[in-house]
Amino acid sequence: MRKLYGYFRSSAAYRARIALNLKGLEYERAFVHLTKGGGEQFASEYAALNPQSLVPVLQEGEDTLTQSVAIIEYLDEVYPEPALLPKTPLERARVRSIALSIACEIHPLNNLRVLRYLVRDLKVTDAQKDEWYRHWVVTGLAPLETRLANDSATRRFCHGDTPGLADICLVPQLANARRFNIALDNFPTLVRIEQTCMTLKAFQDAAPSAQPDAE
Amino acid sequence: MRKLYGYFRSSAAYRARIALNLKGLEYERAFVHLTKGGGEQFASEYAALNPQSLVPVLQEGEDTLTQSVAIIEYLDEVYPEPALLPKTPLERARVRSIALSIACEIHPLNNLRVLRYLVRDLKVTDAQKDEWYRHWVVTGLAPLETRLANDSATRRFCHGDTPGLADICLVPQLANARRFNIALDNFPTLVRIEQTCMTLKAFQDAAPSAQPDAE
Repeated sequence: MRKLYGYFRSSAAYRARIALNLKGLEYERAFVHLTKGGGEQFASEYAALNPQSLVPVLQEGEDTLTQSVAIIEYLDEVYPEPALLPKTPLERARVRSIALSIACEIHPLNNLRVLRYLVRDLKVTDAQKDEWYRHWVVTGLAPLETRLANDSATRRFCHGDTPGLADICLVPQLANARRFNIALDNFPTLVRIEQTCMTLKAFQDAAPSAQPDAE
Repeated sequence: MRKLYGYFRSSAAYRARIALNLKGLEYERAFVHLTKGGGEQFASEYAALNPQSLVPVLQEGEDTLTQSVAIIEYLDEVYPEPALLPKTPLERARVRSIALSIACEIHPLNNLRVLRYLVRDLKVTDAQKDEWYRHWVVTGLAPLETRLANDSATRRFCHGDTPGLADICLVPQLANARRFNIALDNFPTLVRIEQTCMTLKAFQDAAPSAQPDAE
């Protein structure tokens, strides 16, 4: 039994969905609504599964896996084809670095609990919250655009001609940026890669709007 | 030629130093002062090396590696002994998940540029800034303590009886917490593992206070 606990809008859950789809793996879905009733992720049943109260969680039989990037590395080790990381250590380091420059530098600053803290505890205005969001997206994407645009290892996808871990992190981040009406004109390479990804069914089927819990 | 660009207080650079020491790898050091003169990481020479203007950067001959967790995975692939990740995919997923629950969920919220934004742009008070710092440390460490304390895979170290990627992320995070005077009484398992790590020369020599650029 394989079951993914997610939320349609969570970009970390979106990453896991893309990876499962690219690997062609079937999975059950469980929906954890992050805003309803103060957040179902804090309910005792889910918190017992993941004390961090974050999505996604992947259940593989008796085993519980957390942290989207760790889940994707696991899937790539157990189901090696199609590979989500390249072969050589240097290439793998490049892909992981691109992925982590999104997963560690952009997404954590803009997730729901951080925005909530800004509003509830620091009493920032909606305009300040939106500017915070925009600031960290642009601060993260601008050097990534520079980096990808100037490296011949960037091809149809972030690395080479097949989709992988970096693309899996990029696409949900750009979806989030669009949701907050952030102009992406300065990131032509990133947008071009996103468009290439979105021609693939694995990405299309993983999109927030395609999920059964989408609102 | 191997050269690590770091800053004594950066916990991401601290992670890379521990990994290099555990592997017994020699390296040159370059110092990037993150606060002097507005931050040397923004100077053109360093920004050319790493457009993200973050530390650490590892130069391996002609190659430039960024993002501390990607650097450590690279080192573990190229220099497999002593291993920083366990053998089986499930165990590796556990270690990566612990590491990323620090590297993605705690550290990004409390690094220098975020604290600066809170003070300069959102005009928070020093007390609010300290509370922000404390909040994300405790929010991240509390479920990690629960998780490690209740899992027989936790032994002398976060996973088993040898130090690895999870410990490499944990120790610098606890050092940061101490620097901000955060009480760690509720995290006995984490502190016990930290103390075990600090009996090892690889961790001692990587500590901020042991660096040539320490103030």
